[in-house]
Amino acid sequence: MPLSGIRVVDLTRILAGPFCTQLLADLGAEVVKVEAPGQGDPVRGQGVIRNGLSWYFAQFNRNKKSITIDLYKDEGRAVLADLISRADVLVENYRPGVLEKMGFFQARLRELNPGLVVASVNGFGSTGPYVDRPAFDFIAQAMSGFMSTSGEPDGEPMRAGPPISDLIAGLYAALGAASALLARERGTTSGGQRLEASLMNGLISMLAYASASYLATGELPERTGNDHPVVYPYGLFHASDGEIAVAPSTEVMVRRFLGALELSRLLDEPDFATNQARMDNRERLKPLINEKTRARTVEAWIERLNGAGVPCGRVMNLAEVFSDPQVLAQDMVLEADHPGHGPVRITGFPIKLFGTPARLRHPAPRLGEHTDEILQTLGYSPDRIAALRERGVI
Amino acid sequence: MPLSGIRVVDLTRILAGPFCTQLLADLGAEVVKVEAPGQGDPVRGQGVIRNGLSWYFAQFNRNKKSITIDLYKDEGRAVLADLISRADVLVENYRPGVLEKMGFFQARLRELNPGLVVASVNGFGSTGPYVDRPAFDFIAQAMSGFMSTSGEPDGEPMRAGPPISDLIAGLYAALGAASALLARERGTTSGGQRLEASLMNGLISMLAYASASYLATGELPERTGNDHPVVYPYGLFHASDGEIAVAPSTEVMVRRFLGALELSRLLDEPDFATNQARMDNRERLKPLINEKTRARTVEAWIERLNGAGVPCGRVMNLAEVFSDPQVLAQDMVLEADHPGHGPVRITGFPIKLFGTPARLRHPAPRLGEHTDEILQTLGYSPDRIAALRERGVI
Repeated sequence: MPLSGIRVVDLTRILAGPFCTQLLADLGAEVVKVEAPGQGDPVRGQGVIRNGLSWYFAQFNRNKKSITIDLYKDEGRAVLADLISRADVLVENYRPGVLEKMGFFQARLRELNPGLVVASVNGFGSTGPYVDRPAFDFIAQAMSGFMSTSGEPDGEPMRAGPPISDLIAGLYAALGAASALLARERGTTSGGQRLEASLMNGLISMLAYASASYLATGELPERTGNDHPVVYPYGLFHASDGEIAVAPSTEVMVRRFLGALELSRLLDEPDFATNQARMDNRERLKPLINEKTRARTVEAWIERLNGAGVPCGRVMNLAEVFSDPQVLAQDMVLEADHPGHGPVRITGFPIKLFGTPARLRHPAPRLGEHTDEILQTLGYSPDRIAALRERGVI
Repeated sequence: MPLSGIRVVDLTRILAGPFCTQLLADLGAEVVKVEAPGQGDPVRGQGVIRNGLSWYFAQFNRNKKSITIDLYKDEGRAVLADLISRADVLVENYRPGVLEKMGFFQARLRELNPGLVVASVNGFGSTGPYVDRPAFDFIAQAMSGFMSTSGEPDGEPMRAGPPISDLIAGLYAALGAASALLARERGTTSGGQRLEASLMNGLISMLAYASASYLATGELPERTGNDHPVVYPYGLFHASDGEIAVAPSTEVMVRRFLGALELSRLLDEPDFATNQARMDNRERLKPLINEKTRARTVEAWIERLNGAGVPCGRVMNLAEVFSDPQVLAQDMVLEADHPGHGPVRITGFPIKLFGTPARLRHPAPRLGEHTDEILQTLGYSPDRIAALRERGVI
């Protein structure tokens, strides 16, 4: 696997940081998740719990190992220092400054391990006036402008349902870590370095033409719901049993679309002959199209429109997604074997490497499952491990 | 810079592929964008055009070089083969099979350059029943289930405004490429390999607890607009001059929030005393809160709520985002100097590497700006370059 042999010490919890280390683990790194004895990552108790196992935790912690260490104790921080000494990457998603408060200043980290790559995931970055604010996906979606570009024109700014700012920040941090490792490996840098990604900056980087357009003109983009801002017809239409998304982005495709609907005659009418005319008369054209699409099923329309070369797709709910032949062909649902729980279904790998594919090596760990194994690789004797356990350090 | 010395041949156009190569370029790779003579990437003509320059193109093609090659000509494909021979990475976002139709089969690519990493960005992956379908962001948002989780409970499934499936697929491909390079560099693989990321799989990987919950229970998640599915109060509230996002995710934070609103007394009423009661009586509680929040400005509430330790943020439009002190402190707006155009504003770097920071080395290239320079580094003589130009190959 591409990151085989890379050792990651994972101090993260909840979602943004754990997604970063999940990506590194999926790519083959040995990720050691450090958790508080007795409780661990709060996500162990969140989402749907089945027979004591959170499927949400299972999804985002596969391929990782778990060690429990009490980082409030000096002896616990000494164990962490040992772990750091033999690691390639440290990932953390504390608020800026917390790692330092624990005694792991940059100089100390460099002393422990000059080759260490330290990746931080946080809300707003580690400089600037908002550095101490707590960050949540919803707040980042609001403050980044992302929400202002989503939703109906006459409705509220609308968040995306999934917590994308967490996941995008984690993904950026993983790319940063891989790049820093590559630089170290090629001798571009003399050792490791510190890097960070944030919920806020990640979403700002995803505004695409909305940001380009605002920065060019100073004009705010309008929300257009599911409609395209400058092309019509385009968007969501209603079939007899659900919705279809249709994206005819060129004049040729619009002709194909209206042809497949047996509405080609509209193109001869001045009110619908050009894209501008169709935009101006959108409120009249939309019901004419929906009247046609309502006469058949989603399935029938998808087949007919794809056959006519019109980009389209079913608006799928999650039951449809996770039974879809394409999704299954792409192995986007995996079954993790959690002993005592039977097969736990989790989503698959979004990066397909054909030479060294990502694979499910082991399920998300039980709390502290690998404590002994990892301490042994650090050279701790069974007696020392037993003593640490007795003192509540691990 | 972390990817200094890495050479990327960039056959991509529009958005998903160019975002992948933009990330690699921002991290220091030499990205050579191959474009068709005379026209180039269609994005050169899209978005807001100022004085002949698309600010959208400028945003997504900074730090790249441009060479024009007519790939419909045998001689053009021979030039591409030469480029490939000296490259580390090839990035393409054709539909699956197109690169092969151009003669660049995997075996040929390996012969030209055994160390080559080939990164593809496409709609649905290169296997499965939908492999030949054209992909657009809107279709991927619909088919991945992403839209089904976003929007008002009584409204349509709602897309995110920005084309996030393109950007996320590009980001995954960049992580795949960096990982494959690292594997090659460390000797984990004996050379390069092929990898891909897709619009569809990328979004599926971002469903987070919605997918985990569905896979555990078989029940479809409900759309909840801007509200939290299981916590109240939480969401968007109206100040006198705009909206605030408030995310009190714990009971302690709810108490602080209602305290700051001078509504603590509600917690003594059975209808609002517990989270479950507040969820049940959400439609009565929401106007009570909005009545309070409407009495002051966004600014006043942000200050008061942050002071009380309640996670909150302004729902910003893009004018507010790009003048926000945090956004500016994080260098998330850059000015690119396009000769003849004055400063062109583009968004900044979402990955902050403190040892080897990303930086703006040069603005998005003019079409074919670096054709001669690059052909010279391939050892082409001025006469040969002139002859290729005369025959319309470059």
